[in-house]
Amino acid sequence: MTETEAGGRAGVLFPPERVETARRATEDAAFDALLVTPGADLRYLTGYQALPLERLTCLVVPARAEPFLVVPELERPAAQASPAGRLGIEIVGFAETEDAYELVARRLPPGTRRFAVDNHMWAEKLLAFQDALPGAQPGLAGDVLSVLRMRKSAAEVAALRRAGAAIDRVHDAMGEWLRPGRTEREVARDIADAIVAAGHDHADFVIVGSGPNSASPHHEVSDRVIEPGDPVVVDIGGTTAEGYCSDSTRTYAVGEPPAAFLELYRVLLRAQTAQTEAVRPGVTAEELDAVGRDIITAAGHGEHFIHRTGHGIGLETHEEPYIVAGSKRPLEPGMAFSVEPGIYLPGTFGARIEDIAVCTETGGERLNLTGRDLVVLPG
Amino acid sequence: MTETEAGGRAGVLFPPERVETARRATEDAAFDALLVTPGADLRYLTGYQALPLERLTCLVVPARAEPFLVVPELERPAAQASPAGRLGIEIVGFAETEDAYELVARRLPPGTRRFAVDNHMWAEKLLAFQDALPGAQPGLAGDVLSVLRMRKSAAEVAALRRAGAAIDRVHDAMGEWLRPGRTEREVARDIADAIVAAGHDHADFVIVGSGPNSASPHHEVSDRVIEPGDPVVVDIGGTTAEGYCSDSTRTYAVGEPPAAFLELYRVLLRAQTAQTEAVRPGVTAEELDAVGRDIITAAGHGEHFIHRTGHGIGLETHEEPYIVAGSKRPLEPGMAFSVEPGIYLPGTFGARIEDIAVCTETGGERLNLTGRDLVVLPG
Repeated sequence: MTETEAGGRAGVLFPPERVETARRATEDAAFDALLVTPGADLRYLTGYQALPLERLTCLVVPARAEPFLVVPELERPAAQASPAGRLGIEIVGFAETEDAYELVARRLPPGTRRFAVDNHMWAEKLLAFQDALPGAQPGLAGDVLSVLRMRKSAAEVAALRRAGAAIDRVHDAMGEWLRPGRTEREVARDIADAIVAAGHDHADFVIVGSGPNSASPHHEVSDRVIEPGDPVVVDIGGTTAEGYCSDSTRTYAVGEPPAAFLELYRVLLRAQTAQTEAVRPGVTAEELDAVGRDIITAAGHGEHFIHRTGHGIGLETHEEPYIVAGSKRPLEPGMAFSVEPGIYLPGTFGARIEDIAVCTETGGERLNLTGRDLVVLPG
Repeated sequence: MTETEAGGRAGVLFPPERVETARRATEDAAFDALLVTPGADLRYLTGYQALPLERLTCLVVPARAEPFLVVPELERPAAQASPAGRLGIEIVGFAETEDAYELVARRLPPGTRRFAVDNHMWAEKLLAFQDALPGAQPGLAGDVLSVLRMRKSAAEVAALRRAGAAIDRVHDAMGEWLRPGRTEREVARDIADAIVAAGHDHADFVIVGSGPNSASPHHEVSDRVIEPGDPVVVDIGGTTAEGYCSDSTRTYAVGEPPAAFLELYRVLLRAQTAQTEAVRPGVTAEELDAVGRDIITAAGHGEHFIHRTGHGIGLETHEEPYIVAGSKRPLEPGMAFSVEPGIYLPGTFGARIEDIAVCTETGGERLNLTGRDLVVLPG
């Protein structure tokens, strides 16, 4: 994915008014300036997909003055050629031996007392800004931007739908790679290739947890050889050329699994189905979490569902809103998030089912349409 | 790359005494604690290659108490199975609704006044630590760790040598992909595949700058069709399964280039050769930068060499030491860094030659051995 491609869709996915929208939100949140380094926030605001490196690249949005983009002089042509170069924002270059943080501080309007930085800004950059702006108080841009990024536009939902269809194609062909006698690592390598072949720019993660490893939610892969009868959790995702992420989990059995696993899977499927059907505006994140947790708890597995129900998804795989106990955030149309309950019996086996869901005006839409019944592959 | 593979080499690349070494360095730097989230520092210290996600994973090294590793409860099995699990460090899990930052603050020894965070820690985590440790002063772990990480062990130099040989294989076969009539993007896709096929776990970046784009140092790729006679800057790198990075640039001509380009290339080659030959202990970073800059300036191109000479390399593509004007850091045996002068005529063409060099006891070793004379491919 490069700036050129993003620019080609800028009118749709990256509308040019976002910097001004962010400026107003910055002012409303009583910040004097917003400082955004490379990452999803910068791409969301400008379409510019800059690499996060040690030299400062930073979109500066003062609450009551014109925005500007600070870049290393050697990246000026790249910034100018990016979608950010077409927004009419001044690009300010600095030389290798200049202090870019002082440069930003000098150009900020006098009286800058509170500034917001993107949530993923590196500590070394945040501390350098604190040094350059003595007495000013830092805060998080997430408080300003995540409410904007959370509510996906129709173009963004369409991009997520395309990403969902791409990862579905990988799950639909899982029997090509997932077989007894192969290691998790071998299977994962093939899946990573398939994620790209199915329409992603790159694979972001491939979890293949077989047998007892299926009970470790964030297991990645190992050299364990998959055995007949194993349950296998396959949790995979990638990013498309448009910049939007996919993330879907299916649990497979390779040959006939133990009866206790089938029982566990039935409970999980009931919970995950109930949760995807419960998506609608006004339901809070904790209520949606509870819909699945209550079913799993009633079946005696409450202590084995050791993580939240899900996370938002968009330009990042994990972003707001989080579907977690304690969050009273009500769902709103355009919110996109994973619904991924799991049940894990340590040392024995586990299962997880995950779809991306979007809250619509009247209910929810699943962006992953691969069947959710247990797929038993040849063992 | 997974923890299992890293673990297999842990005795060599990731020796278990590093956490204790870091503790002593933390104490020497008058920090009360070192806080390290996922990334190169965590991998360097423990071998644990955790994903940087929104939940806190953090190695806590108090200056005068036992270290511990805080992980989300759902990642406990993954952490335990990683090389970090074999270091005998206590692993402390937290549940989804617990405040992990408060947990760290509670477990730190009383009187924690100065703490160091890894340089790439996300702002949201740093600010959460500042909230949980009111009155304590944050600093950067780089001040403690970069002096350790800069001096590569023999095992690390060997790993960098393998990475260098892998990227050399890609440059040596460039004629397979780089041809007039193809776009930069098409060529870059083939190169990315070749980077993996040549022995990397993944490609980190592929710059293909043809014709006037060769004058933009951080250009990535575009849909420009490569034309006969174009100079083409190809700057590529990847990370091997061991975790070490490669980074090498060659400038090609596709068919006979303009005479002015040949002259520019001769100057550049002289500068880059002089710089790689000047590597030895005691030479400072700015002196090494000047060796090339003086030659380029004498030839009338001083203003066209718009970036520093190079950057350190290891578990990250860009790390200390930076070879830049103003840095009086003397080279030491084990330091590994790029030597990559460039000359860029805006809108016309440019060239860059880059090798990774290691400072030895008596001089320097180049880890990239692809020929540096201009390769003219069929036009």
